[in-house]
Amino acid sequence: MHVMIIGAAGMIGRKLLERLAREPDALGNELKKLTLVDVVEPAVPPVFSSVSTALALDLSSEGAAERLVSSRPDVIYHLAAIVSGEAEADFEKGYRVNLDGTRALFDAIRSESRNEPYLPRLIFASSIAVFGEPFPAKIGDEFFTTPLTSYGTQKAICELLLADYTRRGIFDGIGIRLPTICIRPGAPNKAASGFFSNILREPLVGKEAVLPVDENVRHWFASPRSAVGFFVHAARMDTSQIGPRRNLTMPGLSALVGEEIEALGRVAGQKAVNLIRREPDPVIRSIVSGWATDFDARRARELGFTAETSFDEIIRIHIEDELGGRI
Amino acid sequence: MHVMIIGAAGMIGRKLLERLAREPDALGNELKKLTLVDVVEPAVPPVFSSVSTALALDLSSEGAAERLVSSRPDVIYHLAAIVSGEAEADFEKGYRVNLDGTRALFDAIRSESRNEPYLPRLIFASSIAVFGEPFPAKIGDEFFTTPLTSYGTQKAICELLLADYTRRGIFDGIGIRLPTICIRPGAPNKAASGFFSNILREPLVGKEAVLPVDENVRHWFASPRSAVGFFVHAARMDTSQIGPRRNLTMPGLSALVGEEIEALGRVAGQKAVNLIRREPDPVIRSIVSGWATDFDARRARELGFTAETSFDEIIRIHIEDELGGRI
Repeated sequence: MHVMIIGAAGMIGRKLLERLAREPDALGNELKKLTLVDVVEPAVPPVFSSVSTALALDLSSEGAAERLVSSRPDVIYHLAAIVSGEAEADFEKGYRVNLDGTRALFDAIRSESRNEPYLPRLIFASSIAVFGEPFPAKIGDEFFTTPLTSYGTQKAICELLLADYTRRGIFDGIGIRLPTICIRPGAPNKAASGFFSNILREPLVGKEAVLPVDENVRHWFASPRSAVGFFVHAARMDTSQIGPRRNLTMPGLSALVGEEIEALGRVAGQKAVNLIRREPDPVIRSIVSGWATDFDARRARELGFTAETSFDEIIRIHIEDELGGRI
Repeated sequence: MHVMIIGAAGMIGRKLLERLAREPDALGNELKKLTLVDVVEPAVPPVFSSVSTALALDLSSEGAAERLVSSRPDVIYHLAAIVSGEAEADFEKGYRVNLDGTRALFDAIRSESRNEPYLPRLIFASSIAVFGEPFPAKIGDEFFTTPLTSYGTQKAICELLLADYTRRGIFDGIGIRLPTICIRPGAPNKAASGFFSNILREPLVGKEAVLPVDENVRHWFASPRSAVGFFVHAARMDTSQIGPRRNLTMPGLSALVGEEIEALGRVAGQKAVNLIRREPDPVIRSIVSGWATDFDARRARELGFTAETSFDEIIRIHIEDELGGRI
């Protein structure tokens, strides 16, 4: 089995590689070849050094998609994207990378299959940013996509293309709408959503973290481990059960910031909780108030996708996967 | 006011021009300039001969969009498209014209506004083909778009672009999701939906028509006069009421084929009804069974869009507009 990961240097790409390194048959077949692609050359896990090719390549550059697809991977993960803030700040770059790059990949598969039959599994990282407020209390699987960012628009368009190209028999596509990933490993970043992770990750290692919103803010979460699980399952699952509606809102946990903090207290004690510094930020509060708070991800659950059901679990997973099992 | 109609040689384009010729201030301002565009040179209504330019131009050809937009129309109607059947048969042509052509137009407006402020009203003809079965009994305004044709996919993508470009302040866009237009004037055509019009239009002039489906088939209709009314209203309306969800399912009439026939009997007598020949066609029956049957088009109605409420009315409009008022 030849697996290609486009966006292999990103957080999800690296986590997926760690999982495959630990469990090389996770995708159901022996991993005989691995092609790792990103705008910077991705690191190759040592266990895969003999079967891997790492490429620094911008998917939206001339000929890049054709070059990648000519090696005819069985499974293609497309995780690469310009993030939300940058896609909003740079209109042209966002559309070029997130829309044109993805379409170039899809069309390269179409061209490739003309030479010789070819039908790869194509797994696309989408986002709940395809939705835009106002929302119902729980967003169901049939709620419409009215994004309020260019990033969300680009993801929603790629979802439509993915479904049509799949219906046409060009590839076997699945769109994975990710919840906000929490606890995001690494240093605090400036993303408006960063605090959801910061207020847990930093106190767990004895550092202060800033909370810019009220405790009654609700949002939709899954751990990095669940996110990897979604992508692994998407490669293994029987796609004949999905039908033509190929883009799936992944399961997740709807929780209040206050519930995050209570879970932190239970797992790490009041000392950890005391490291959270409240610094209300009206800009962040206003951005976050437009985000989805809860989903009924029934279809994905019925198709076998799973996520956490409590913040205690999310915190324990972080401790196991990032902190060597202890705090 | 400078109005541009792209797709001016099509049925809706011609009907819109007839309306403007009869009522030159229909769009709320004096019509000082009219630019008519289609792949074949559109006919210019004599009353507009001194203010009109007619162009034979393919919007998706190199430089065409920039050329059109450089004349800075105040209102741009984008009605041009490869129809459903052809977009399904010719994958590349459908995406080139229906997606790339539309995006070229949108991007040309963006480029033009960089030279000097420019914010035209952009009115886009979309379609209920953005929806795909299975459907609820009534499709609400928040139902998701999961098209089952490439045509529907291209329309749904253009809707997303229209909303994002509008949100960005590039133009002031409205997407008009048309019901099936009935009674379509002209000769019977081979479109799978043709019979809905044929079984009324032909008997009204004493000719036979073929009904390929059962009388209990339900579908969603508006007259050509209503369709023109949607486009006129979209140019005049106060768009500040719409909000960011810029694509609207137009109101229409949900009716059974049997109700069409009953209305024909009431308006034109049993002799007309007897001209309908039942010739069941399993292919057409199967295509039509996947189409939407009913909508709750609340938002559009609240925004002032109106359509017929009975087939008697639809037939009378046809008699008035196409048959000189008498049968």
